[in-house]
Amino acid sequence: MKQSDIAMVGLAVMGENLALNMESKGFTVTVYNRAHTDRPSVVGRFMNGRGKGKNFFGTESIDELVSSLSRPRKVMLMIKAGQAVDAVINELLPYLSPGDVIIDGGNSDFHDTERRVKEVESKGLYYIGTGVSGGELGALHGPSIMPGGSPEAWPLVRDILQAIAAKLEDGSPCCEWIGRGGAGHFVKTVHNGIEYGDMQLIAEAYSLLKNRMGLGNEEMAQVFAEWNKGELNSYLIDITSQILRFRDEDGSFLLDKIRDVAGQKGTGKWAVGTALDEDDPLTLITEAVYARMLSALFEERKLASDLYGNSGNLKNEFDKDELRQALYAAKIVSYTQGFSLMQRASKRYEWDLDLGTIARIWRNGCIIRSIFLQRITAAFKEHSQLENLLFDDFFFGKIQSSQVVWRKVVAEAIRAGVAIPAMSSGLSYFDGLRTLYSPANLIQAQRDYFGAHTYERTDRAVGTFFHTDWTGQGGDTTSGTYSV
Amino acid sequence: MKQSDIAMVGLAVMGENLALNMESKGFTVTVYNRAHTDRPSVVGRFMNGRGKGKNFFGTESIDELVSSLSRPRKVMLMIKAGQAVDAVINELLPYLSPGDVIIDGGNSDFHDTERRVKEVESKGLYYIGTGVSGGELGALHGPSIMPGGSPEAWPLVRDILQAIAAKLEDGSPCCEWIGRGGAGHFVKTVHNGIEYGDMQLIAEAYSLLKNRMGLGNEEMAQVFAEWNKGELNSYLIDITSQILRFRDEDGSFLLDKIRDVAGQKGTGKWAVGTALDEDDPLTLITEAVYARMLSALFEERKLASDLYGNSGNLKNEFDKDELRQALYAAKIVSYTQGFSLMQRASKRYEWDLDLGTIARIWRNGCIIRSIFLQRITAAFKEHSQLENLLFDDFFFGKIQSSQVVWRKVVAEAIRAGVAIPAMSSGLSYFDGLRTLYSPANLIQAQRDYFGAHTYERTDRAVGTFFHTDWTGQGGDTTSGTYSV
Repeated sequence: MKQSDIAMVGLAVMGENLALNMESKGFTVTVYNRAHTDRPSVVGRFMNGRGKGKNFFGTESIDELVSSLSRPRKVMLMIKAGQAVDAVINELLPYLSPGDVIIDGGNSDFHDTERRVKEVESKGLYYIGTGVSGGELGALHGPSIMPGGSPEAWPLVRDILQAIAAKLEDGSPCCEWIGRGGAGHFVKTVHNGIEYGDMQLIAEAYSLLKNRMGLGNEEMAQVFAEWNKGELNSYLIDITSQILRFRDEDGSFLLDKIRDVAGQKGTGKWAVGTALDEDDPLTLITEAVYARMLSALFEERKLASDLYGNSGNLKNEFDKDELRQALYAAKIVSYTQGFSLMQRASKRYEWDLDLGTIARIWRNGCIIRSIFLQRITAAFKEHSQLENLLFDDFFFGKIQSSQVVWRKVVAEAIRAGVAIPAMSSGLSYFDGLRTLYSPANLIQAQRDYFGAHTYERTDRAVGTFFHTDWTGQGGDTTSGTYSV
Repeated sequence: MKQSDIAMVGLAVMGENLALNMESKGFTVTVYNRAHTDRPSVVGRFMNGRGKGKNFFGTESIDELVSSLSRPRKVMLMIKAGQAVDAVINELLPYLSPGDVIIDGGNSDFHDTERRVKEVESKGLYYIGTGVSGGELGALHGPSIMPGGSPEAWPLVRDILQAIAAKLEDGSPCCEWIGRGGAGHFVKTVHNGIEYGDMQLIAEAYSLLKNRMGLGNEEMAQVFAEWNKGELNSYLIDITSQILRFRDEDGSFLLDKIRDVAGQKGTGKWAVGTALDEDDPLTLITEAVYARMLSALFEERKLASDLYGNSGNLKNEFDKDELRQALYAAKIVSYTQGFSLMQRASKRYEWDLDLGTIARIWRNGCIIRSIFLQRITAAFKEHSQLENLLFDDFFFGKIQSSQVVWRKVVAEAIRAGVAIPAMSSGLSYFDGLRTLYSPANLIQAQRDYFGAHTYERTDRAVGTFFHTDWTGQGGDTTSGTYSV
């Protein structure tokens, strides 16, 4: 019997579609699902359903699964992130041999992946933690894939992963090696954060088109369709246009019947937690995560709306092209923050991330795919160690040319009372970044005043800290102005 | 020999000052410092220095420390949060007896305190994790104290803790029992987050007075002194005024020589992490934490400033009283968010927090002490389960009367390019909260479009989820519009 090229553990929508994608590229795939107490089992239903007549090998036990694979064996997990991943790894290890590869394609916390790479490598096996983005359709037709972990495993799995990945115009796959340890899942976490940012920015633009410019759904669909022909061309702008014109069974717009309470699976929060760990000001994405939480406070919003109502009927003063420019400028800031975070983490964890390549493999297959990412690849081709995208010539020109209208749109929204937390947060970051003398000197003075936390002086060397007895009442341990 | 009433472990500035405070209130205090290899030891220097001739008992070993205490013994730790606390607890336990109390007064993570309460209680002893705020001077003259942990221990330590705490006008102490487990340290974490928010808001006001209104340091000191006479009366406004007029040895303003790179000890980040855990949109405090991180990116700020320079010379259009109103409104939002977070956590952890009392014990001794907190106590006296301070009559009136100028100040700052991340984030939160129909319906539609994440409908019951096959290409697992 022909041995399978790879096994897929987990036949929920993502695992099932990835397995179908692999099979369609000529690979034989063993499938397995842990929860198989039902009759017919998940595997049985798949083998008689979407998998019927194809090169799949259905198994109902780990033993059977492992026996079905050619060596070195490759087992991919598409299961719920967390303890289930550790559980399956522990079930697999006794059956696998040195040189075999376990691939976790779920949304795992990169810290867990760092740990698992070490644990699995300590048994002589290889481990890959890979980001997979593209949703169910991406999984089926070609996702963006971000593998990291044991570098020795990359040549063993490259053919399969690049075969199933999305392709760019030139045929190159949206799957390249990211780096050691948890690098792949880290990059996926940032990807997801950027996805939150993009979605919130589009939601804010929708809110302004609707509430400030008074456009109807068809008109808005047209605006997004137009925007999708230009520099904002992207999957999310495209589907926004389609969503806006989508009709429910009774002919009315479905969007208007969807409850405005946004869910989240937690990966946006992880991006924020990662930024806090790295001391990186990921403000826009964080506001996007919080905006979803705020949307979920439905009862409080109802009460606040009853109490505070509208903030008046100021005449709207921006047009849709100005809004487009504001959206684009804010999007630049969002990616600037995400890529800064990756640059910082890359140094700390010594991942040596190739940020231009990361932007390239996001250009197709994944949720944030866009023409915009080409500009980011170009920026890092120019300067691979670029700390901040706002220093790149192209983005500099874009920000400078749109700065005045960006400010106008944000200021108008603020005066009119339309919530635009992400757009305004992006602008605050930009203004904070370009401020040579920030008011943080006052914060340092306050901290030293009440807590003897010390400060640096502009007329002394950086890294030399001073304390002042501001009140003349400090104890012996802190009196006088001295270097500590 | 007279036995001591309590032991203080850790003689850094906070521990030393708290010990002196206790002794001044008539208690005999045993002192101990773990790092005592130097000669003279930290304890020796204290006993011959600030502790000389007073009722202190200096000890150089845990054995000696424990023997010196009357029963039930009380040992307070003022040491670096983290592993050191566990290490000292483990050193102490073999010497202590059932009924003794260990008190951690450091800035411990409340999750650690939750764990330690259980661990210490399992040995028959009691554990208290208490927030202590007020900096070095507060510790000496009367801090705000937020004890939580083993309820049985409260009657044993109440006399000492309330004696050393700050007092209100009526003589009542700024120290009351907070709740079980990690409640005390949780509340301290939120306190510190609010402190970050207050400091950032004041820094933004300083930046606007300086950069938009063109005031000099003496003039600004005068503005803050005026504000301190009214409803903004608070410790941080007061010291800001003093800092602004403080002269360096050469007669120039010291503030102008302080480097604008803000440090942080991490408790602000904890507040953010806690908010993420609770799905609570703590936006303003988060922006304050990020603003400090951004200030620390000194090289990037220098580069961005060179590249982008100033954003023009628009005429300033608000006056200092309008700025005061904007600052006050943003402060209301910051506290609204902090108290919402406590309300939510109180329910989740079943701490039964008395938020009015918490506001009261913050009214003196601690860094965020202010007249403003009286209004919060009053609001919770009116409705103890108030979910959001913006629903209180007083705060409603304040927000309504200042809303237009708040918007004006924020919009002007945005057009002029002065970074005000906290003020504008607070306004976005307010606008998000009072929005009855938010654009989160679009986010839900997008999530369902690309990930089959489902959505609720406004014309169906809450909690019923639907999925739409937006493209007609979804797999069997997700096709059609159905309730899942």
